[in-house]
Amino acid sequence: MAATQVLCMGNAIVDIIARVEDSFLEKHDRVKGSMMLVDAETSATIYADMPPAIERSGGSAGNTAAAIASFGGSAGYIGKVHDDQLGGVFCHDIRAAGVSFETALAKTGAPTATSMILVSPDAQRTMNTFLGACTELTPEDVDQTTISAAEILYVEGYLWDTPTMKASVLKAYDLAHKAGRKVSLSLSDSFCVGRFRAEFMDLVENQVDILFANEAEILSLFEVDNLDAAFERLQAIGKLAAITLGENGSAVISGGEIIRIAAMPATVEDTTGAGDLYAAGFLYGLTNGKPLEDCAKLGGMAAAEVISHLGARPDVNLGDLAKKTFG
Amino acid sequence: MAATQVLCMGNAIVDIIARVEDSFLEKHDRVKGSMMLVDAETSATIYADMPPAIERSGGSAGNTAAAIASFGGSAGYIGKVHDDQLGGVFCHDIRAAGVSFETALAKTGAPTATSMILVSPDAQRTMNTFLGACTELTPEDVDQTTISAAEILYVEGYLWDTPTMKASVLKAYDLAHKAGRKVSLSLSDSFCVGRFRAEFMDLVENQVDILFANEAEILSLFEVDNLDAAFERLQAIGKLAAITLGENGSAVISGGEIIRIAAMPATVEDTTGAGDLYAAGFLYGLTNGKPLEDCAKLGGMAAAEVISHLGARPDVNLGDLAKKTFG
Repeated sequence: MAATQVLCMGNAIVDIIARVEDSFLEKHDRVKGSMMLVDAETSATIYADMPPAIERSGGSAGNTAAAIASFGGSAGYIGKVHDDQLGGVFCHDIRAAGVSFETALAKTGAPTATSMILVSPDAQRTMNTFLGACTELTPEDVDQTTISAAEILYVEGYLWDTPTMKASVLKAYDLAHKAGRKVSLSLSDSFCVGRFRAEFMDLVENQVDILFANEAEILSLFEVDNLDAAFERLQAIGKLAAITLGENGSAVISGGEIIRIAAMPATVEDTTGAGDLYAAGFLYGLTNGKPLEDCAKLGGMAAAEVISHLGARPDVNLGDLAKKTFG
Repeated sequence: MAATQVLCMGNAIVDIIARVEDSFLEKHDRVKGSMMLVDAETSATIYADMPPAIERSGGSAGNTAAAIASFGGSAGYIGKVHDDQLGGVFCHDIRAAGVSFETALAKTGAPTATSMILVSPDAQRTMNTFLGACTELTPEDVDQTTISAAEILYVEGYLWDTPTMKASVLKAYDLAHKAGRKVSLSLSDSFCVGRFRAEFMDLVENQVDILFANEAEILSLFEVDNLDAAFERLQAIGKLAAITLGENGSAVISGGEIIRIAAMPATVEDTTGAGDLYAAGFLYGLTNGKPLEDCAKLGGMAAAEVISHLGARPDVNLGDLAKKTFG
């Protein structure tokens, strides 16, 4: 048995979260619901105009790792922060959540990454990410021992945005395959899929064992306009896939089977982290030998928790919540 | 008429907030409900053991300034942060709240102050403050123009903890008196009162026009064991005083009159900032010519808002809330 259930790999980010009106998004030419990369200058311009905010550790795969640990699972994380105050915040929070995190701090280069998350009145989140120290992640940060120790390697698609981050993922996938481990990918964002469609298709067909995506992402990947068509394509490829469908719950595609799970009711405050926490519940269930339907239910429960408050990390112990919810 | 209604002066702090069990306070020898100063080493020890947290700008007088601006009042702030990431967070948040803040950043010395705020299941907050760059505040940061421009100078008692911070306050009080402005003091914390009782007594008797305190603080100041005795002492001194009484609301002592105001109902999540926001509502009312009873009601409303969520800055526009509440 592997020492770690899930090793997550992604951009290590501290979120800067504030509620804004739709007019703020329009003024700054933001596309609602998306993740847009911003340079230091644009970041400063938006921040100067942004309302008072709160800071909370984030990063898609970091949120997943923290949530798996909150379920009581064993999780590790690979990601790059700078040796600065926000890097200290990120390191503290992920370790305090119970996640093993040993990636060396960057001592030179850009500061720790931040994402300005603009939460609009409809609870949608629009993310403006300054990658900062994340771009310092290199294949040297990926080692055989850590990869081999994990049953599943889970990677966020956002890592495709720079060549060295991508090279780090490809090394990790390679080491995981050699160690007989399963590899997983989240497509992260429909614009991200648009930027790297051909590469993501190649990954999905030839590398990935478990795929996570939401509706917009999977439609974009296959360039189709309806879910049935996307599900057919997934079935043809023959990989396990969990597709989140917002208020319509999720669908799990496994061989010839399509399992549909309703969403759990929630008062939606901020949708940030919904997909990350769905993946956490799903992977926690999977590595604990649960049937796929139960994996999807655990994912839906975790997603419902995280969208009920500001921030993308769980506010309560997810293991306790699962006991209370499912017995 | 003064350009600024209230100029607030205090320790510029970024809060690091997490919920803990009472056992955490016991393990780290914390006195529940107090503010304890910690050195860098103790700060690191507590932080390493602390659950995942959120960061949010704080500082007693900073909270008051932000809340006065949220009411629609004109507020300024004097306080010291370092030129670092958390200093940037503090500057952004207080300016984005609409507060004028021009104190020069510290370029050398300790990093921006942080306070680890431990919120226990009974919603009490226990604060562990590393003063950091706050101790770099000097009388040079206090100038005649800024002080003269403000109708009321409001100072937190926490500034008594180092000689240069104290000297800065005494200079500010002196300049305010010379400009014919009113000066105000918050006693901040009962242990703080214990540390500086004689000096605070001297201030209250000879310098301060408007005093803010909670029950524990005013009892400690006069070394009496009941509120009636404390109110008698306040009446004998003859200054305007607003005393917060937790779930029992507040009392305003003005000449021969004692006005009692009931607390506004609230679901208490985190008591951090209750006194700061009470002072904000009271001073906003006072500088807008409201009767004392209405000032106390505005204070109670702002306190009720801030204790209903994590963090010591308002989550909603207090001006709008006041219109909705009082018409």
